[in-house]
Amino acid sequence: MKNSQREGLLLALDFGGTKLAAATAVLGENQLLDQTQAAAPQDSNAGTDMDIVARLAHGLLEMAKLPLVAVGVSFGGPVDAGQGLVRLSHHTQGWENVPLREMLEDRHGVPVAVDNDANVAALGEFRFGAGQGCGSLMYITVSTGVGGGWILDGKPWRGEGGMAGEIGHVVVDPQGPVCPCGKRGCVERLASGPFIAQRAREWLQTEPRRGSILRQLAIDEAESTREHELALDQRLAGGYEITAEMVSRAADLGDDLAWQALEVSARALGRAIGNAANLVDPRRFVLGGGVTKAGERWWATVRRVARETALPEVELEIIPAALGDDAPLWGAMALAQDLGPPPQRQE
Amino acid sequence: MKNSQREGLLLALDFGGTKLAAATAVLGENQLLDQTQAAAPQDSNAGTDMDIVARLAHGLLEMAKLPLVAVGVSFGGPVDAGQGLVRLSHHTQGWENVPLREMLEDRHGVPVAVDNDANVAALGEFRFGAGQGCGSLMYITVSTGVGGGWILDGKPWRGEGGMAGEIGHVVVDPQGPVCPCGKRGCVERLASGPFIAQRAREWLQTEPRRGSILRQLAIDEAESTREHELALDQRLAGGYEITAEMVSRAADLGDDLAWQALEVSARALGRAIGNAANLVDPRRFVLGGGVTKAGERWWATVRRVARETALPEVELEIIPAALGDDAPLWGAMALAQDLGPPPQRQE
Repeated sequence: MKNSQREGLLLALDFGGTKLAAATAVLGENQLLDQTQAAAPQDSNAGTDMDIVARLAHGLLEMAKLPLVAVGVSFGGPVDAGQGLVRLSHHTQGWENVPLREMLEDRHGVPVAVDNDANVAALGEFRFGAGQGCGSLMYITVSTGVGGGWILDGKPWRGEGGMAGEIGHVVVDPQGPVCPCGKRGCVERLASGPFIAQRAREWLQTEPRRGSILRQLAIDEAESTREHELALDQRLAGGYEITAEMVSRAADLGDDLAWQALEVSARALGRAIGNAANLVDPRRFVLGGGVTKAGERWWATVRRVARETALPEVELEIIPAALGDDAPLWGAMALAQDLGPPPQRQE
Repeated sequence: MKNSQREGLLLALDFGGTKLAAATAVLGENQLLDQTQAAAPQDSNAGTDMDIVARLAHGLLEMAKLPLVAVGVSFGGPVDAGQGLVRLSHHTQGWENVPLREMLEDRHGVPVAVDNDANVAALGEFRFGAGQGCGSLMYITVSTGVGGGWILDGKPWRGEGGMAGEIGHVVVDPQGPVCPCGKRGCVERLASGPFIAQRAREWLQTEPRRGSILRQLAIDEAESTREHELALDQRLAGGYEITAEMVSRAADLGDDLAWQALEVSARALGRAIGNAANLVDPRRFVLGGGVTKAGERWWATVRRVARETALPEVELEIIPAALGDDAPLWGAMALAQDLGPPPQRQE
């Protein structure tokens, strides 16, 4: 897998649920040379995704004028990383058992590594983001879903069956509400954005005297759109279009109901992190995804509950991700780095 | 650390809470040459423990008449494995910050490795017991306490701070009873032997019409001892001397109250294992310790709840430990093997 070229190019590809992206880097450099992306079409399938990414990659490779030496790929769905096989996509048709590594190796004639987005984002944060300088970490994304990936002793830990990191379906409250997966009290059911919004919406309906700030935000939001009529109808019926982002804003403005809806999220996540610290002791937890923008009170609660849940002897720190939505792309670059020839020493 | 001797001896030492043990093996052989043990004295301290183990080791080394090449040590308490430093013992005075590796290296003049008993037992089961042939496992001991150790991809995973494997203090029921550690619903508070017994004892007192088989076992047990008079007094007062072993026997004989006291243990452990499988995906869980002798119904419940808690895609198997109380001693031998020169190939 090594070659003797003194200069070469690495290509990173990100097949995300909502966007497709590509980036290049010069071998041995810890920065991107170029980066480009496209929204995933509404009615896309595996074939159109592949075509779009091929076009993005082609453009970057044309510009770079350096020989390609390796490709790293992040895929937004279950992947058999050992085989480089996509198992399926939860967003896009046609990805069932696609040998993505083989297809890309055939196309580019260089080694390719493929892994799922949570594992790849963990590697990206580890090498280029909030995990730099530490030995191990758990990366957790809290967004429409909750997922995670491990770096243990400097290397991705994927589990014996490639399923490690599924913190979203760790049960933290066996008496909690039913998760779409069928269990009660999963982290995802309590901590993810859509369920923060759902909880706030339900409480607004059952507790008519509370949540006035959040109500007003929802009305303002609706009135600022063309759905004015609908919004007034909903207001009369007691229904609101609520998003997790609105809940965060209302909590920030002092709305108690909104904060309590967020607090459930923070407490569930804190408990899961404390338990994970007791079990695996990675010391550092890196949190990304939209819900982590919920404000300092949410973070303080995650940290406090995690600290209470972990044994006193278990050290842990919980910090924000540094790379945002680009973590998978950076991680894919790290995968490519690990395939390419080692960098030239510069002393 | 390598030498050119064609034959050499490995020494394994186990500083347990209730017993001290030593064993020898010929380099390159996966069986023990000899094994000896002594009960830990009631009022022992670090010095007397060291003396007893030194005497046990001396006897074995005299008999073997082979040059010693490496020593592996299991210690029943927190250890800094990297430094070979015992932090403390929960059973025995005087073990605070004892440089056990250095002391033994000075005594024997060969490399020494030291780790805590849960990590070492995990390694013992992995190499010589129920974990043979697999890539990763979590070993869990369910006894007076609940502890665990990891083997990930063939190697012990101790965590960044040496605290990995603390499954006993994973919270599985935030509304559960208060654990001595201060939290609610820890696995140890729900699953360990003393708390199975305590739960059954409390229920016997609050539910006078239930648990007749367990009551009779407790009375028979007491009457068969010299504490006959006391037992009759206790019977009148509604108090019973109950052990987890008696609860298991009563459950086996059809006592419903006893089974329910056990079921709480099995369910807590099953949930923790299912969560650990989602997080780490080691596939195999090896369970040892006295409580695992509670019978097939306990095992079936652990397995069912773990299977329900893990995602369907996460494969897992839960099997009994094979080495019993000797797992730490075998694991200490594995530590010694890893220090010694590699075995001669025999083809």
